[in-house]
Amino acid sequence: MDFIYNNLIYFIPAFGLIGIFFMLAKSAWVTKQDAGDATMTELSGYIADGAMAFLRAEWKILSYFVIVAAILLAWSGTTVATSSPVIALSFITGAFLSAFAGFIGMRIATKANVRTTQAARTSLAQALKVSFTGGTVMGLGVAGLAIIGLGSLFIVFYTFYVKNVAGSTVNGEDMARALDVLAGFSLGAESIALFARVGGGIYTKAADVGADLVGKVEAGIPEDDVRNPATIADNVGDNVGDVAGMGADLFGSYVATMLATMVLGREIVSHDQFGGIAPILLPMVIAGLGLIFSIVGAAFVKIKNETDSVQKALNIGNWSSIILTAIATYFLVQWMLPADDLHMIRDEAGGILKDGASHFTRNGVYMAIVVGLVVGTLMSMITEYYTAMGKRPVLGIIRQSSTGHATNIIGGLAVGMESTVLPILVLAAGIYGSYYFAGLYGVSIAAAGMMSTTAMQLSIDAFGPIADNAGGIAEMSRLPEEVRHRTDNLDAVGNTTAATGKGFAIASAALTSLALFAAFVGVAGIEHIDIYKAPVLAGLFVGGMIPFIFSSLCISAVGRAAMAMVEEVRRQFREIPGIMEYKAKPEYEKCVAISTKASIREMVAPGLIALITPIIVGFTFGPEVLGGMLAGVTVSGVLMGLFQSNAGGAWDNAKKSFEKGCEINGEMFYKKSEPHKASVTGDTVGDPFKDTSGPSMNILIKLMSIVSLVIAPHLNANVQKTASIHHPVQKEIRMQAVNTNAIKIDKKG
Amino acid sequence: MDFIYNNLIYFIPAFGLIGIFFMLAKSAWVTKQDAGDATMTELSGYIADGAMAFLRAEWKILSYFVIVAAILLAWSGTTVATSSPVIALSFITGAFLSAFAGFIGMRIATKANVRTTQAARTSLAQALKVSFTGGTVMGLGVAGLAIIGLGSLFIVFYTFYVKNVAGSTVNGEDMARALDVLAGFSLGAESIALFARVGGGIYTKAADVGADLVGKVEAGIPEDDVRNPATIADNVGDNVGDVAGMGADLFGSYVATMLATMVLGREIVSHDQFGGIAPILLPMVIAGLGLIFSIVGAAFVKIKNETDSVQKALNIGNWSSIILTAIATYFLVQWMLPADDLHMIRDEAGGILKDGASHFTRNGVYMAIVVGLVVGTLMSMITEYYTAMGKRPVLGIIRQSSTGHATNIIGGLAVGMESTVLPILVLAAGIYGSYYFAGLYGVSIAAAGMMSTTAMQLSIDAFGPIADNAGGIAEMSRLPEEVRHRTDNLDAVGNTTAATGKGFAIASAALTSLALFAAFVGVAGIEHIDIYKAPVLAGLFVGGMIPFIFSSLCISAVGRAAMAMVEEVRRQFREIPGIMEYKAKPEYEKCVAISTKASIREMVAPGLIALITPIIVGFTFGPEVLGGMLAGVTVSGVLMGLFQSNAGGAWDNAKKSFEKGCEINGEMFYKKSEPHKASVTGDTVGDPFKDTSGPSMNILIKLMSIVSLVIAPHLNANVQKTASIHHPVQKEIRMQAVNTNAIKIDKKG
Repeated sequence: MDFIYNNLIYFIPAFGLIGIFFMLAKSAWVTKQDAGDATMTELSGYIADGAMAFLRAEWKILSYFVIVAAILLAWSGTTVATSSPVIALSFITGAFLSAFAGFIGMRIATKANVRTTQAARTSLAQALKVSFTGGTVMGLGVAGLAIIGLGSLFIVFYTFYVKNVAGSTVNGEDMARALDVLAGFSLGAESIALFARVGGGIYTKAADVGADLVGKVEAGIPEDDVRNPATIADNVGDNVGDVAGMGADLFGSYVATMLATMVLGREIVSHDQFGGIAPILLPMVIAGLGLIFSIVGAAFVKIKNETDSVQKALNIGNWSSIILTAIATYFLVQWMLPADDLHMIRDEAGGILKDGASHFTRNGVYMAIVVGLVVGTLMSMITEYYTAMGKRPVLGIIRQSSTGHATNIIGGLAVGMESTVLPILVLAAGIYGSYYFAGLYGVSIAAAGMMSTTAMQLSIDAFGPIADNAGGIAEMSRLPEEVRHRTDNLDAVGNTTAATGKGFAIASAALTSLALFAAFVGVAGIEHIDIYKAPVLAGLFVGGMIPFIFSSLCISAVGRAAMAMVEEVRRQFREIPGIMEYKAKPEYEKCVAISTKASIREMVAPGLIALITPIIVGFTFGPEVLGGMLAGVTVSGVLMGLFQSNAGGAWDNAKKSFEKGCEINGEMFYKKSEPHKASVTGDTVGDPFKDTSGPSMNILIKLMSIVSLVIAPHLNANVQKTASIHHPVQKEIRMQAVNTNAIKIDKKG
Repeated sequence: MDFIYNNLIYFIPAFGLIGIFFMLAKSAWVTKQDAGDATMTELSGYIADGAMAFLRAEWKILSYFVIVAAILLAWSGTTVATSSPVIALSFITGAFLSAFAGFIGMRIATKANVRTTQAARTSLAQALKVSFTGGTVMGLGVAGLAIIGLGSLFIVFYTFYVKNVAGSTVNGEDMARALDVLAGFSLGAESIALFARVGGGIYTKAADVGADLVGKVEAGIPEDDVRNPATIADNVGDNVGDVAGMGADLFGSYVATMLATMVLGREIVSHDQFGGIAPILLPMVIAGLGLIFSIVGAAFVKIKNETDSVQKALNIGNWSSIILTAIATYFLVQWMLPADDLHMIRDEAGGILKDGASHFTRNGVYMAIVVGLVVGTLMSMITEYYTAMGKRPVLGIIRQSSTGHATNIIGGLAVGMESTVLPILVLAAGIYGSYYFAGLYGVSIAAAGMMSTTAMQLSIDAFGPIADNAGGIAEMSRLPEEVRHRTDNLDAVGNTTAATGKGFAIASAALTSLALFAAFVGVAGIEHIDIYKAPVLAGLFVGGMIPFIFSSLCISAVGRAAMAMVEEVRRQFREIPGIMEYKAKPEYEKCVAISTKASIREMVAPGLIALITPIIVGFTFGPEVLGGMLAGVTVSGVLMGLFQSNAGGAWDNAKKSFEKGCEINGEMFYKKSEPHKASVTGDTVGDPFKDTSGPSMNILIKLMSIVSLVIAPHLNANVQKTASIHHPVQKEIRMQAVNTNAIKIDKKG
C-alpha cells in the first residue's frame, strides 16, 4: 500500500493498459468468429472499404489542419510564461489518439457486423455476444487510450515543470504551465472529434435520406435492399457516424472532464499527501476505476434463451459498473483526500458554498460525484421517455400524423421543445447541488464521476450500429426471416440505447463545458463574468446564436448532399439496365464517393466557426466577453442539442410504430397508410436533427470551451508575456488596485 | 420658452392628448366612409361581433387576474420602504389602458375592413387611404394612451413622493419609490399584452389552420369562401391576433422602454436643470416628439394612380417620421442635458465605458439614440431579406419543395436558424455601441429612440390585417375580380410590413429587456451577476429553457384547437345540407366560439409561467440567480423569436410564390403541383411559428423582466423591510463588508 501511495501517479496509465489488454483479447475473439458465406463477406467488405475510404479522406484533410494548428500553438506557447511550445506535441498526441480510437472502433465494427449476422443464424444469445463484444472493443479502446495518453503526458509534464524545478509549488504557476500544456491534448482530441462527428453525421444522413427517397419512395424496394446503389453508403454511414463519431465525441468529453477537474484541482489548497496533488490526480484515478468496473460490468451482459430481454442484460451490465464504481469511489476519496477542510484559492474570501462557507470536505467531494452519477442516469431516463414507443410524446405525434404532414411536424417540434424542460431542471439542480457540496471543483468532479463508466456507456452505444449493420447485411444477403428477426430484436434495443446514449452525451458535454468554463475563469485571471455589463451581454447573445448557425449549416449540408445522392441513384437506375432484376450490380462505390466528398467538404465551415470564434472574441474583446460568449454557447447548445436529438428520436419511433400498426381514434393504421406517410416526413426531417446537428452540439460547446481554456493564459493580464517563470507578486499588485477601487466605491456610494 | 422649461413635466401628457385628438378625427373620418352593400355589412358585422365576443371573454378572465394581482401587489407594496400599496393602482391603470388600446384598434379595424373593400371598388388610392387611416387610429391610440398614462402618473408620484417631501433628492430612495410604483403601470400593460398576444395568436391560427385543412384541402373551396363555416373565425382571428395582439405588444414595449430609461435615469448624477430630473424626463419627451412626427409622416402616405407603389408610399411616411424625429431629438438632447459630464452612481468607480471612463456626454446620449434608430432599421431590413419572395432564402425553400414535404421543412428550419445570425450581430453591436457611448443609460435610451416612432410603425403594421380582411370580405361577397385584385395588392404589401414589423418588434423587445435588466440590477442592489458562479449559471440554463417550453405550449395549443375546428367544420358540412350550394348558411358563430374558448383556455398556462417563474426563482435563490435567469430568457427568447418568425415568414412566401409559378431546375410549377403541396405543408407548420409562438417571445422576455423589476426592492438586502423612508447608511455598511473581503483576498491571494 505504501508503494501505491508513493507512486500513485505512475499507476494511472496502468489502468489504461489493463483496458487495452482486455480490448485486444476481445478483438481477437471477435475476429476469430465465423464471417459467413461469400455474399456476406463480399458485402461486409464493401462496407469496410467504404468506411476506410472515408477515414483516409478525412485524415488527409485533418492532417493539414493538425500541422497548421500545431505550428500556431507552438509559436503561441513561446509568448507567455504559463505555456510552452511543447503544447503542440500534446495537441498532436491528442489528435492522433482520438483518430486512432475512432479507427479501432470502426475496424472492429466492420468486422463484428457480419459476424453478428452469421451468429444470428444460430441464436440471439450468440448474436448479442458478438455484437456487444464488438462494442466493448470500442469502449475499452477509447477509455484505455484516453487514460494512457492523459496519464503519461501528465507524468512527463509534472516531472519536468514542477517536480524537478526548485521552488515550485503544486498550487503555483509551474503547475499551471504543466496543465496548460496538457490542455493541448484535450484540444487535439476535441478538434478531431468535432470533424469526425460533423463529417460522419453528414455522411450517414446524406446516404440514409438519399437511399430512402429514391429506393423506398420512388423504386418501392425495401430498406437495405442490395439493388439500391446507396445502400452500402448507408451502412458505411452507420459506422462513420454512429460508431466513429460517437467514439470521438466521448473520447473528447472523457479527456476534457478530467483535464478541467485537474485545472481546478490545482487551485485547491490541500495537504501533503501525494505531494499535494491529490485533487489533481483524483479524476484520473476515478476514471481508471470506472474502466476496471466497466470490464467487470461487461461480463454481466449475456442472455441464455431466445426470449430473454436484451435490454435487461444491458441494464444489468450498466448498473453493475455504475454501482461498483460509486462504492469504490467512496473509499478512494476517503483514502486520497484529507479529512480536514479543502478550499480553492479563488474562493478564500468565503461565502459562496453551503451555509455561506467557502470550504468543503472530502465527503462533499464524494457527494458531488454521486450528484454526477445521478444526473447522468436521470438524463438518460428522461431522453428515453421522450423518444420511446408507447409513451405520451410519441403517441401524440402518431395521433397528429392522422391530420397530415404539417401536424406531424408541428407535433414533433412541440415534443422536441418540451423535452428540454426536465433535462434542464435536472442539469440545473445538478450544477447547483454539486456546487453546494464542493464548489467549482464539485461541478467538475461531478462530471468526472458521470464520465467514469464511459467505457461501459460506449460499449452499449457501439453495440447498436453493429446490430443495425448486421440486419442490413442479413437483408442484403437475403438470409432467412428468422435471422433478420433476431437482428431486428437487437436493433430495436439499439435504438433505445442510442437515445439514452445521446442524453448521457449531452449531459456529460454540459457538465464538462461548465467545468472547462470554471477552469477558464481561473486561468484567464478574471474575477467576474458580469452579464449586466453590456459587452458581456453582447457576448452572451453572440454565443447563443452560434448553435443556431452551426445547426443550420449541418442540416443544409445534409440536404445538399442528399440531393446529390438522389440524382446519382436515379442515374444508376436509369443507365445501368438489369439492376432491378438482380442481373447487374449497382456502382456502390460512386455513392460512397459522393457521401465521402460531400461530408468532408461540408464539415469545414462549421468546424472553423467553432475553432476561430473564441479566438477572435477573446483577443478583440477580452476574457470577460469571451466568458459571456461561452456561457451563451453552452446554454443555447445544450437546448438545441436536446431539442433536435429528442424531436428526431420521437419522429423516428412514431414512424416505426406504424410497422406494427397504430390505433388513432379507434381505427388501425399500418405501413403505406396516409398517417404513416406523414410520419415518414417527420422521420426524414428528424434524421439530420438527431444524427447530424443535434449530437454535434455536444462537441461544439466543449470545443469552444477548450479553445478558450488554451488561449486563456494569453488573455490573462497578470501573466508575464515572456517565457520566464515569475512569482505571484504581480497578482498581488493588481489585487491592491482592485481594492483601491472598492474603497472608492465605499466613499462615494 | 422659460414657461416650457419650468413646466416641461406637465407638457408630456399634452403630447399624448395631441395624438388622441388626431386619432379621434381620423376615426370619425373612417366611420363616415361608405360601408358597402347589405352582404358586405352583414359579413363585416359577423366579424365585428366575433371580435367583440373574444374581447369580452378575454376581459372576463383577465379581470379576475387583475384583481388578484392588484391585491397581491398592494400587500407587497406595504412590506418594503421603496414601494407602496399605490402600485396596485398603477397596475390597474396599465392593464386597463392596454386593454383599451387593443379595443380601439380592434374596433376601428373591424370598421375599416369593409370600408376598404368598398373603397377598392373605386380606386387603389382610396383603398389605401381608408386602410392606412384605420391603421393610424390604432397607432395614435396606442402611443397617445401610453404617453398620457405614464406621463400623468409620473407627475402624480413625483409630486407626492419627491417634490413635496422634505429632504428628498432626485437621485435618492424617494425617487426610487416613485419609479417603483410607476413600474406597476408597465407591469399591468405587459401582463395584458402577454395574454392578448398568446390568446390572439392561438385564436387566429386555430381558425386559419382549421379553415384551410377542411376548406381548401378536403372540400376544395377557395380561401375566405363564404361557404366555409370557419371563414368568419379566420377573419376575426386577423383582428384579435394581428391587430389587438400587436397593439398590446407594442404598447407594452413602448411603456417598458420609457420606464426602464427613467429608472436608470434616476441613477444619473445630473445638474439642476429641470430640477435635476432631465435624464428621467428625456425618454418621455422623445416619445412625445416621435408621436408628433408620426402624425406628420402619416400625411405623406398616399398614392395617386393605380400603378403607384404602395410600399414606396409607406416607406416615405416611415422614413419621414424617423428622420424628423432624429433631427428634433438632437436639439432636444442639447437643450435638456447639461454640456458637462454625466455619469451613473453605480459606475463611479470608473473604467467601464469608452477609453476606460465612466462619464459620458450629452453627445454620447444622442449617439446612443442614433444607434437605436439604426438597429431598428437594420433589423427590419434583415427580416425582410429572409422572408421576401425572390430572395435567396425563400428561393432555396422553393427548390427544396421539389423533393417533397420533408426537404421543404428542412429548408425552412435551416433558413429560420440562419436568420438569427445577422440580427444577433446587429443587436450585439447595438448593445456594445450604445453602452460605449453612454453606459447602461445609453442602452436604454437607444431602445427609447428606436421606439419613438411606435405610432408610425404600428400604423403600418395595423394596415396589413385591415387590407387582409378587406380582401376576405371581397371574396366572401363575391365582388368583381378587380376589387379583389386591389385588395390583394394591399395585402401583399401587408405581408412584407408584417415581416419587417416583427423584426422591429423583436429588436425593441430585446433592447427593452436589456434596459429593464439593467434597471433591475440597480433596484435589486446587487453588484454583479456573475455567471461563473454555479447557481447563477443554473439560473441561466433554466431561463434559456423557458422560451422552449413556452413555444411548445403555444404551438401544441394551436394544434389542439385546430383539430377541434376541423371536426366542427366537418360536422357542419355533414349535418347542414345545402351549404355547398349556397342554400344554407353555415353556423359561423359555433366556429367563433370554438376559437374563443380554446384560445382563452390555452393562454393561461404559458401566461402563468411567465408571471410566476421570476417570483419563485427570485425569492428562493435571490436576485443574482434571478438575474442569470433573466439573461437566459432574453437571449434564448430573442433567438427563438427570430427563428420561428422568420422560418414561418419564409415558408409563407415560398408557398405564395407558387401562385405566380416557380421555376425549379428549368421546369415551371404552379398551384396544385407536388412542390406546391409540399410548400403548403411548410406554410401550415409556419403558421403557429410566425403568428403565435414567435411573436409571443417578445412579450415573454419583457414581462419576465418587468416582473423582476417590480419585485426587485423586495429582493434587495439593503432596503428596509418596513414602510419608512431611510437613509443610505445601510448600503455603506454593506460596502464596508465587501471591502473587508477584498482586503482578505489581497492578503492571501
